[in-house]
Amino acid sequence: MVAAEEPESFFATAPPLRDAGAVAAKLQEFVARISSHASPEIGGRRRIVCVTSGGTTVPLEQRCVRYIDNFSSGHRGAASTEYFLKAGYAVIFIHRRGSCQPFCRFLPDDSFLSFFDVTADSKVQVVESHTTVVKKAIGEYSKAIEGGSLLKLPFTTIFEYLQLLKMVATSMSSVGLHGMFYLAAAVSDFYVPWDSMAKHKIQSAGGPLDMRLSQVPKMLSVLRNQWAPLAFCISFKLETDSDILIQKAEMALSKYKMNVVVANLLATYKEEVVIVSNGERNSIRRCNKDEDLEEHIIKLLEKSHSKYIYSSTDGCNKNDCETLIPIGIQTLA
Amino acid sequence: MVAAEEPESFFATAPPLRDAGAVAAKLQEFVARISSHASPEIGGRRRIVCVTSGGTTVPLEQRCVRYIDNFSSGHRGAASTEYFLKAGYAVIFIHRRGSCQPFCRFLPDDSFLSFFDVTADSKVQVVESHTTVVKKAIGEYSKAIEGGSLLKLPFTTIFEYLQLLKMVATSMSSVGLHGMFYLAAAVSDFYVPWDSMAKHKIQSAGGPLDMRLSQVPKMLSVLRNQWAPLAFCISFKLETDSDILIQKAEMALSKYKMNVVVANLLATYKEEVVIVSNGERNSIRRCNKDEDLEEHIIKLLEKSHSKYIYSSTDGCNKNDCETLIPIGIQTLA
Repeated sequence: MVAAEEPESFFATAPPLRDAGAVAAKLQEFVARISSHASPEIGGRRRIVCVTSGGTTVPLEQRCVRYIDNFSSGHRGAASTEYFLKAGYAVIFIHRRGSCQPFCRFLPDDSFLSFFDVTADSKVQVVESHTTVVKKAIGEYSKAIEGGSLLKLPFTTIFEYLQLLKMVATSMSSVGLHGMFYLAAAVSDFYVPWDSMAKHKIQSAGGPLDMRLSQVPKMLSVLRNQWAPLAFCISFKLETDSDILIQKAEMALSKYKMNVVVANLLATYKEEVVIVSNGERNSIRRCNKDEDLEEHIIKLLEKSHSKYIYSSTDGCNKNDCETLIPIGIQTLA
Repeated sequence: MVAAEEPESFFATAPPLRDAGAVAAKLQEFVARISSHASPEIGGRRRIVCVTSGGTTVPLEQRCVRYIDNFSSGHRGAASTEYFLKAGYAVIFIHRRGSCQPFCRFLPDDSFLSFFDVTADSKVQVVESHTTVVKKAIGEYSKAIEGGSLLKLPFTTIFEYLQLLKMVATSMSSVGLHGMFYLAAAVSDFYVPWDSMAKHKIQSAGGPLDMRLSQVPKMLSVLRNQWAPLAFCISFKLETDSDILIQKAEMALSKYKMNVVVANLLATYKEEVVIVSNGERNSIRRCNKDEDLEEHIIKLLEKSHSKYIYSSTDGCNKNDCETLIPIGIQTLA
């Protein structure tokens, strides 16, 4: 028997993805269409980035009442998707159902109705103070959807997430160096293999509950080595302890052969990240609250991706390749 | 040392509720104002129901990256709140942050922007097909908010939920028989006591993860016996196995001295519930998809609450007290 920590075992025992055929067809059409485009904005072939966003769940029962979840609003992934689209990338947005969506980030959690009022002649209108932000959002959203540059694929469980990632990665292998993976989703480290999971709701009468969770196979290695060996890969490292953050990020960089690891702390992830790449650490801090940290992150990554493409294809134009250091970036020792 | 399963121990070790003072003040004002009203709709004093809704989380780390969650959209609680308001009750809505909200149930998950378009003269308008539903929602929402009949209190963790429930229940003890608890939230059965919880994110390098979870104290007993001994109490029982559902519901009824237990199965909870009370089981089934099961549940409960009030105060008017059997209800053996 293969251990639960092995990728083969994970996929062999996972409940199959619903509508896998329809998803595969959509993906194939999207990648084929995009990779046939030239893109003047970023020079040469059109690039595709797969952005993953939100937390994965780990069901504790097959007919699931309880599950383990990872803290993630999906804000980082949604904001980054907007800036990737602006930079000319096509985006495959693999996101947790119900998490933050691109161009909808301004929307407060439960006050949808506060955006509207009803006029004296019984017409619904958008409240004056919100029209600017709503107009901007609708415009940008429509442009992305109508231009066919955004493909959204939702997941809930770790099983759905990893099956989607595998499908997207193997589809994107055809774009080679022009593909990017921006793995911002908060992926479970531990799971209960489907075939050893309780079928029904665990009963609470029997005293304390002892659980043994298996490690989720380290799919970054499989992504890098098998699914998309030429792609530019960025993973994220979130910790709560600043003492181990950079060390853990550098370990991930070398162990999984990532091109970049974005390191952040739970307490300050909206204000600051450290971009760790081979031999370099760039700290990006937000100067004010209205600014998106993601704007700077994506500018930096776009340049790094260019450099990667040109150096790999031996067609490097030095001006294009220098890593941009936007305002607000400090290079750390 | 007191065991983690004891209510005293739970509250003594829980992280204190943020803004507890402000919440207490709001509650006091709400209950005092409502209980000074007479209510012609339901005869006599104005009634208050505390509706709990959505799932509670159990953090696995103090600086929480991972948590155990309970499946619950919050739809039942949100819909029920609407029908309680319609029936003339004032509602304290204790809900999971981000879960389904009253009068917003029609809103699809991530297509907020599809409700709008921009006209040729650059004005934002609501898409024609949505105006009716939006108008109705805004109207009803405004009425509830402006009328001061709805108080919303959000929670995320089991610690926040039980502290809020305790505060609300002790505040509502002053309304005695006219208070109702409609406990639709999906509350964790197991938790990690705060003082035995890992401070930082659990590291994944060390192989499988073994966890021992303690039982959450059975607060229904405490609610019934100490916090609000006169209130009309309804709890919910959700199971995945139909063989044990009714038996578990009847056990809860007698063990926690609930007035009613609403029993439902995960697979069919939107289509059917069984209302279990002393010596009676009423099954309520939805006749068509556009109908809210909650409309019938609340009608039935309102009548049962009336009967309870009148019989307890010895002022029973027989016509008011008979349990209404609305269309779509079948009395089971």
